[in-house]
Amino acid sequence: MKKKEFLDAKENALTSLQDAYIKGKVDEGVLPLLDQINRVQGFYTTSSCAGRIVLLEIPQIGDKRAACFLGIWHRTIEPKELQAAATKATTGFLWLLAQAPILHIGAETLQHADMMLKTAIACGFKNSAVKSLEKKIIIEICSTERLDAPIGRDGCLYCDEKYLSLLVEISNEVIERSQVKIGRFAKKLVNIGDFL
Amino acid sequence: MKKKEFLDAKENALTSLQDAYIKGKVDEGVLPLLDQINRVQGFYTTSSCAGRIVLLEIPQIGDKRAACFLGIWHRTIEPKELQAAATKATTGFLWLLAQAPILHIGAETLQHADMMLKTAIACGFKNSAVKSLEKKIIIEICSTERLDAPIGRDGCLYCDEKYLSLLVEISNEVIERSQVKIGRFAKKLVNIGDFL
Repeated sequence: MKKKEFLDAKENALTSLQDAYIKGKVDEGVLPLLDQINRVQGFYTTSSCAGRIVLLEIPQIGDKRAACFLGIWHRTIEPKELQAAATKATTGFLWLLAQAPILHIGAETLQHADMMLKTAIACGFKNSAVKSLEKKIIIEICSTERLDAPIGRDGCLYCDEKYLSLLVEISNEVIERSQVKIGRFAKKLVNIGDFL
Repeated sequence: MKKKEFLDAKENALTSLQDAYIKGKVDEGVLPLLDQINRVQGFYTTSSCAGRIVLLEIPQIGDKRAACFLGIWHRTIEPKELQAAATKATTGFLWLLAQAPILHIGAETLQHADMMLKTAIACGFKNSAVKSLEKKIIIEICSTERLDAPIGRDGCLYCDEKYLSLLVEISNEVIERSQVKIGRFAKKLVNIGDFL
């Protein structure tokens, strides 16, 4: 990729991020990290999520396109919040997901990509990898903590209070660990420019 | 990476695969696919799993190194098999995992890596990416179907029979879809050599 093409892509990405921020569409918890990455020469962020807990309803197994979001929280939650969101369920499978942060980063060269990957992995984002090599080099930064549990069907939760507490305890742990890793990564990136 | 280094790495990988096969350590379900990949110039397989259902006990949240496998099945299962494996549980969190296939493939060049990634993604392995760029180019082929559910604690299952049936139904669906995708990928690879 030519330098000019990279710089144009970075400029477009920064404009999109600014627009998304104004519209309140950027997860606040990840914004300082995005700013930190965008300050480093040779990188820009595209899409991102700070980590979240999600209650989904899926009509058929695997049919994620038809999924309906009953609840999305970018923070730790209480079991009663999950129960309240589940009252909106009607037909299909109810899934509780706790997802670690996910960031997509454009890199100017393979050397840049390799350096960012190593930094991310050292900060605990062990599922990080290069998603695209063609035209643009895009890295995905991702961690391994997660919970993907089917917890009910056709409008009914299949778990009792004790079990719901366990699910919420573990989901909250995913969110808390995510926040620690985001902080660690942002701190590490302060010096990454020196190595490029 | 030089041609000779790649060919040496491929030879070593094939010898290791042969050894693992003799010792019964290769998932039978994925062997024809591995053979298919290794027949293509510019690629070799390293580690692989055909997809599996796992019952794990983890002492503390996140402490996967100390995880104890109570059951591993590379096939669909019955709820009673899960119940029987769970009787071995003692202390900590019980997790049920259903995991899609995962393959690691060495590629000779970035062009090879890009071609293999596109082929895998087109066959439904949408989580595929380049894991390593340095020295060796290693691709990870992986799909998105999964179940990661905490289902009990300190020796007790937290789910009743109805819920256990739902968990098993969905876990089996992950295995069945995995087998379809493995078949589709092996078929597609017959012609990949023509494009390189």
